[in-house]
Amino acid sequence: MSDPYAQQPLVYSFGQGRADGSSAMKELLGGKGAGLAEMTTLGIPVPPGFTIASTLCQTYLDLNAFPPRLTRQLEAALQRLEATTGRGFGNVANPLLVSVRSGAAVSMPGMMETILNLGLNDQTVEGLAALSGNPAFAWDCYRRFVQMYGVVVFELPRTPFDLLVEEARVAHGAARDIDLPVAAIKALVARFKATIAEHSGRAFPEAPMEQLWGAVAAVFQSWNTRRAIDYRRIHDIPDTMGTAVNIVAMVYGNLGETSGTGVAFSRNPSTGEATLYGEFLCNAQGEDVVSGARTPQPIETLRDVMPGVYQELERMGRTLERHFRDVQDMEFTIEEGRLYMLQTRRGQRSGQAAFRIACEMVGEDLISEEEAVARIPPSALEQLLHPMIDPGEALDRLTTGLPASPGAASGQIVLTADDAELRARRGEAVILVRRETSPEDFHGMVAAKAVLTARGGMTSHAAVVARGMGKPCVAGAQDVTVDEHTQTVRFGDRELKLGDWITLDGSTGVVYAGQTRLLAPQLDQYYYTLMAWADKIRPMKVRVNADTPADAHRGRDHGAEGIGLCRTEHMFFDGDRLLAMREMIVAEDRPAREKALAKLLPMQRGDFEAIFRAMEGYPVTIRLLDPPLHEFLPKDETELVQLAEDLGRPLEHLRAVIESLHESNPMLGLRGCRLGIVYPEIPAMQARAIFEAACTVAARKGRVMPEVMIPLVASVVEFRRQSLIVRQVAEEVFRERQLTVPYLLGTMIELPRAALTADEIAREAQFFSFGTNDLTQTTYGLSRDDSGRFLPHYIETGIIDQDPFQTLDIAGVGKLVKMACDLGRSTRADLKLGICGEHGGDPASIAFCETVRMNYVSCSPFRVPVARLAAAQAALAARGTVDRTKATV
Amino acid sequence: MSDPYAQQPLVYSFGQGRADGSSAMKELLGGKGAGLAEMTTLGIPVPPGFTIASTLCQTYLDLNAFPPRLTRQLEAALQRLEATTGRGFGNVANPLLVSVRSGAAVSMPGMMETILNLGLNDQTVEGLAALSGNPAFAWDCYRRFVQMYGVVVFELPRTPFDLLVEEARVAHGAARDIDLPVAAIKALVARFKATIAEHSGRAFPEAPMEQLWGAVAAVFQSWNTRRAIDYRRIHDIPDTMGTAVNIVAMVYGNLGETSGTGVAFSRNPSTGEATLYGEFLCNAQGEDVVSGARTPQPIETLRDVMPGVYQELERMGRTLERHFRDVQDMEFTIEEGRLYMLQTRRGQRSGQAAFRIACEMVGEDLISEEEAVARIPPSALEQLLHPMIDPGEALDRLTTGLPASPGAASGQIVLTADDAELRARRGEAVILVRRETSPEDFHGMVAAKAVLTARGGMTSHAAVVARGMGKPCVAGAQDVTVDEHTQTVRFGDRELKLGDWITLDGSTGVVYAGQTRLLAPQLDQYYYTLMAWADKIRPMKVRVNADTPADAHRGRDHGAEGIGLCRTEHMFFDGDRLLAMREMIVAEDRPAREKALAKLLPMQRGDFEAIFRAMEGYPVTIRLLDPPLHEFLPKDETELVQLAEDLGRPLEHLRAVIESLHESNPMLGLRGCRLGIVYPEIPAMQARAIFEAACTVAARKGRVMPEVMIPLVASVVEFRRQSLIVRQVAEEVFRERQLTVPYLLGTMIELPRAALTADEIAREAQFFSFGTNDLTQTTYGLSRDDSGRFLPHYIETGIIDQDPFQTLDIAGVGKLVKMACDLGRSTRADLKLGICGEHGGDPASIAFCETVRMNYVSCSPFRVPVARLAAAQAALAARGTVDRTKATV
Repeated sequence: MSDPYAQQPLVYSFGQGRADGSSAMKELLGGKGAGLAEMTTLGIPVPPGFTIASTLCQTYLDLNAFPPRLTRQLEAALQRLEATTGRGFGNVANPLLVSVRSGAAVSMPGMMETILNLGLNDQTVEGLAALSGNPAFAWDCYRRFVQMYGVVVFELPRTPFDLLVEEARVAHGAARDIDLPVAAIKALVARFKATIAEHSGRAFPEAPMEQLWGAVAAVFQSWNTRRAIDYRRIHDIPDTMGTAVNIVAMVYGNLGETSGTGVAFSRNPSTGEATLYGEFLCNAQGEDVVSGARTPQPIETLRDVMPGVYQELERMGRTLERHFRDVQDMEFTIEEGRLYMLQTRRGQRSGQAAFRIACEMVGEDLISEEEAVARIPPSALEQLLHPMIDPGEALDRLTTGLPASPGAASGQIVLTADDAELRARRGEAVILVRRETSPEDFHGMVAAKAVLTARGGMTSHAAVVARGMGKPCVAGAQDVTVDEHTQTVRFGDRELKLGDWITLDGSTGVVYAGQTRLLAPQLDQYYYTLMAWADKIRPMKVRVNADTPADAHRGRDHGAEGIGLCRTEHMFFDGDRLLAMREMIVAEDRPAREKALAKLLPMQRGDFEAIFRAMEGYPVTIRLLDPPLHEFLPKDETELVQLAEDLGRPLEHLRAVIESLHESNPMLGLRGCRLGIVYPEIPAMQARAIFEAACTVAARKGRVMPEVMIPLVASVVEFRRQSLIVRQVAEEVFRERQLTVPYLLGTMIELPRAALTADEIAREAQFFSFGTNDLTQTTYGLSRDDSGRFLPHYIETGIIDQDPFQTLDIAGVGKLVKMACDLGRSTRADLKLGICGEHGGDPASIAFCETVRMNYVSCSPFRVPVARLAAAQAALAARGTVDRTKATV
Repeated sequence: MSDPYAQQPLVYSFGQGRADGSSAMKELLGGKGAGLAEMTTLGIPVPPGFTIASTLCQTYLDLNAFPPRLTRQLEAALQRLEATTGRGFGNVANPLLVSVRSGAAVSMPGMMETILNLGLNDQTVEGLAALSGNPAFAWDCYRRFVQMYGVVVFELPRTPFDLLVEEARVAHGAARDIDLPVAAIKALVARFKATIAEHSGRAFPEAPMEQLWGAVAAVFQSWNTRRAIDYRRIHDIPDTMGTAVNIVAMVYGNLGETSGTGVAFSRNPSTGEATLYGEFLCNAQGEDVVSGARTPQPIETLRDVMPGVYQELERMGRTLERHFRDVQDMEFTIEEGRLYMLQTRRGQRSGQAAFRIACEMVGEDLISEEEAVARIPPSALEQLLHPMIDPGEALDRLTTGLPASPGAASGQIVLTADDAELRARRGEAVILVRRETSPEDFHGMVAAKAVLTARGGMTSHAAVVARGMGKPCVAGAQDVTVDEHTQTVRFGDRELKLGDWITLDGSTGVVYAGQTRLLAPQLDQYYYTLMAWADKIRPMKVRVNADTPADAHRGRDHGAEGIGLCRTEHMFFDGDRLLAMREMIVAEDRPAREKALAKLLPMQRGDFEAIFRAMEGYPVTIRLLDPPLHEFLPKDETELVQLAEDLGRPLEHLRAVIESLHESNPMLGLRGCRLGIVYPEIPAMQARAIFEAACTVAARKGRVMPEVMIPLVASVVEFRRQSLIVRQVAEEVFRERQLTVPYLLGTMIELPRAALTADEIAREAQFFSFGTNDLTQTTYGLSRDDSGRFLPHYIETGIIDQDPFQTLDIAGVGKLVKMACDLGRSTRADLKLGICGEHGGDPASIAFCETVRMNYVSCSPFRVPVARLAAAQAALAARGTVDRTKATV
């Protein structure tokens, strides 16, 4: 069989200040191997050893055998290691022992295997005992080795070994393993070997070389364990990457009370504070820390026990930080007072710590402002901005729905909006649980801590309203059944009732039973400093999707530079407005419709005035009425009867109107500019409200920049007809008010046909705002509200990588967006381009927006900081100066 | 003001065998002017004159004045005309009289104005009387001229003039105008002038030049009358085209019994027979024929009255036919035994005549086979293929819906399928009128002559099934209300009841009250000859959309070369199948689903066998299950109860299933390959049915060419997963049957994303079939079923030119189709490309398919001949050798 890596060395040695590898070779040597090589070169005390390249992993898994070239190179490396350490592998008098560890390019913590003390057998253990003058230590090492070998190489369960140790401890009254008498440990080794032979039918290998090959094979095989495969799937790590194998001369933390082992961060990963942080265990080997068999002590105790070692560890932390220019997560072992570093890697950190560390490292001249910005993962920001479930809490999962609006909340189940309001007034924390919500539920959503719906998608009423209010929401939880009669909610097989506590995580979509401690969001000086740097970097503006003055203020507070989408219809869902809106809808002719519209005019004008004020000096994009009219009509009989009474209209007439407005596919029906074309009096009223409000604010010296947006345009003619109405009303109002307010007139690109004919549309439209929610629905032929029945299956089985409603589908929808940008600019060079779909708050999608040179992104108020950061990172990535792929928590 | 045509002559003279213009200058001179010029050059006796170019029309309408250049050129032309005729314009002794007529490049019959005898006034009329020796004639001319001038130039109504003539006739006991005594005519002229002065406040102009300019202005203005604008809108004629003005020396058909005027076709426009055909009126001017004041005689009478003139007319007809290479529609005048041609143009003809004429002209070596094919308009074919409402019938229009399936039918209203079957069995002709149809109505549709629905679009159940059966259908007639209780049907304000007769034209969508005579379709030798020529020309194959063996046979009868779309779901809508299908849908788990599928397997296999047999030697594209499952479930409670009984399942369970299958936008929901991915056992069963049937037919030496089509693919991964299932089943079946049948595996391109990623999909798919119905819906974001509320308004107000579901939207959807073709061929050079949406039967769309080099088009059985012809014409147009824009009826 051919060896695909014939030209590349397979084994890389390190030791005595020299190494074949370096940190640049992370892909080949894995994170651990590269770190060991780099530390060696840096003069950090690292036990010598060598690394088998990760490229060999796939070869081994394919062939189920090692290529002869590896055997030769490994033997050579082993000889070098023997020379460096002055010991011999299998040498009874002076045995060389090694650890064998996995290590992939991407950290997969706890996913793969480790074997320590390899090289011990019935002969060499005596040599180790003699050399160390500590037979208990030597036999303890041997006992551990046989156990690990049994578990890792022979794939036996841990339990029989643990039971035998437990038995021995009880028999000898020993508190810790290391307190057992030597004879007992010797007996354990024998019983371990018997256990291996019995369970596996094979003998424990006494020959060190046989031990070594078995361990290397086991490490490679561990790449394909179920849990490793699952982990890679979840974290999007390619299966072909493979793991490297690190073979390192043993140093011993279990040589007595001046020995030990531990893990330390160069800065506090939770708060970001610049002090050493970690844990330490006296007289122990690494797996004691990992297994939880003994409870480690805080790293500060090391300062008291071995102050010199502590100082050296601090010094090494600083050295490694300076070298790698980031926080380090270090594993170390102290052998009889001497410190060895066994591994160093980039330290994971909390959201809060990420900001502080980045800012302080800029202060220390360790990194640039750009690097600081590039290093903050958007998820860190999310942690900062929303209440989170305390990671320490034990949780009882009920179900998972769509993560419709981020943040977490606990509350008691309520089933109606009125009940929600009532109980909230009494000071109770409630979560509104509905099959789906409608405009009538609005006051209940205001009162509730969070919203859970059984139906509806990411753009359902519940989801949109909750996001607007920054309230957690889980939508479309398919196996939730709400029964208002019995006042119960079923979650699959489990039944909860009105008043029961639940906790909901709108960032993940998971719903838990019971009440849970939440961590409150907090913004500190580091947040503001770093966001200011981000703002300096990004060329793309960040706007907010805001339908109300409150949203507009919230957006400004989060740093929005204008409104990218003001959905006028959401202004109609409230009390009097809804009634006037319904009057307009059921009107039989134009005069009746205009009468109802006249009632809406002052309300809309008032809203626009307040919004313009909140956004003074910034552009405000107002979308004319978009949804199908039936969305505004009552859904049940009681409401319908009420409406007939309120409007003084016969019930039959209303029923006929509702019937006539029914659509098979409302998503593709009479909505958007189609409404404005059939009923030109609607855009006329809306335009009047916009320009009258703009004039009022401008008359008081306010800077108003309205951008009027025609929705759901499929052809330039639709745009032309609607813009004529808007321009005409604008001129009328300007004449009446003796005042002119500059404004733009543009369209939403949310249909494939608009994208395909963008050159024609841009001849007349001054801006495009990409409505990527609808564009995704039409391009994919995928109704977001209905996708719950197959989209999860699609993602699970890998038919699609990501929910295209979360992250823009670049290959399909993105191709259309790019085409529209290019075509649009071909006929209007200064065309203003933005995005206002949900994707405007998604970092990966924002990166795409940067590549097509959009002028701005727009998102819900609570996503604005995420968008500001992501836009800056996208700009840095586009410049190619800073690699933002490093940004993970 | 600038004159945009400063360099171009404005006036073109003709006469004495020489002409400034020719038939090539139709655009500039209009059809009439170009014809007169060409005839003059040909030596045909044409009265001399000149033409004012049509380009001046827009200039005049913009300026409301004539440019000075025109005055100079017109005066020069008039002098030439005086010289040619030897008469003087306004010369009392020897007056030159002229006709002034409009004439655009495109014929707009009766839309614009004509004035005869211009140049007469109180002096010149005496000259004409003296010259002709016939004062009655002279004064008759003058009387007509004043009347026409009053109507055309002064825009007065005809009525007062007609009343005055009537009065005079009664007073003098004259049967015809021309029988009035001279004094009476003189009196009429005076009273006409008084009428003009009274109604318009202006005097009738006595000066011939003033008369002429007034007439020219009136002709130009007639371009913008309401009816002319409407006509252009309907016939898609650009407003900027303008009309030319023809000023021609008068010849007189009203000089006595050896004079006359008439219209003749060089061949019979109704049957196509190669004999002169037309009408003739003795001693009359042209407007007598047009106005219907006198009833003309058949042209044969001319043979008896003036045999020499008749022979000359025949000869001229042949000459003009040879010259223009098409049937001529000629206007002529006989002045005292001398024949003059006043106009010639291409003769309109019936569908039947079109075929005969084209075939016979090939026989006469007048045109080539290619030209013959290019000349048949697809509408001529439609006339031949479907029963038509006799154009002579007076009709009482009830309403208009969508023209869902062509052809006409008369029948009595029935409201239920059972009633339809019952009455049809009794031999009654019935039309099934339903709010909408569902699978349960199928037997009623089979029994009915035609179907009318109040709801649903061009792809509704009623429409699809009716087209499949070749039965007329009008769908989605919005103002139809069906009331089964009172057994009445309301059409807007009118109410009809069960058993009342209606007539329905599925080609236009119009519904009429009462019974009407229909013309039966007939196919003759000319049809077969011409279609055979068409088949030789076209590179694109024509397939049929056929779901049943009957459809397949029908397709073959009409010349289909395979099946382009076999919708397997339509096989499930019948009796037992529907029950098994429903059992499958309500199944709780895979085993239960597979049990139900096992019942469907033999039924599908049987259908496929019969279809393969019907299409032996031709490819058959079978689309796997496509529609959302809820389409198969009962729509009302009674049926639901019945189903619960039939299946022995609790009613509640069925209700829950129906509830769970509800979708907000089923068009964009769980359908197409998404079904096959969620329930892989469905495509597995279907594939088994296909390959077992194929093997059975192949085993008996039949040539089977199945092409399995995966529907609604948005990404290559979906295609890959589904094709794996199909391939695996195919291999299983081939192994079981010890036989291999070659097959193709491809996909329907019906989502924008599929088109955008067609390069990736073509790496794995062997063919694409464009499902342009759904592609139009998603590209436009337009649900066909819901578009009835605004699409008609869009077309009426010119927002879109044509219904995009009828004719492919080339700028938008076509751009995607072209992109998909190009991308697809870029990764698979031999990719097979076809279209199977409704557009596959639409000539304009077929022409587009030719430009992107599709391999075939596919359409419903009764559209196959249309597609064959259109494909041939598209090929000719693409070659550029034959201009098919001529093809109109």
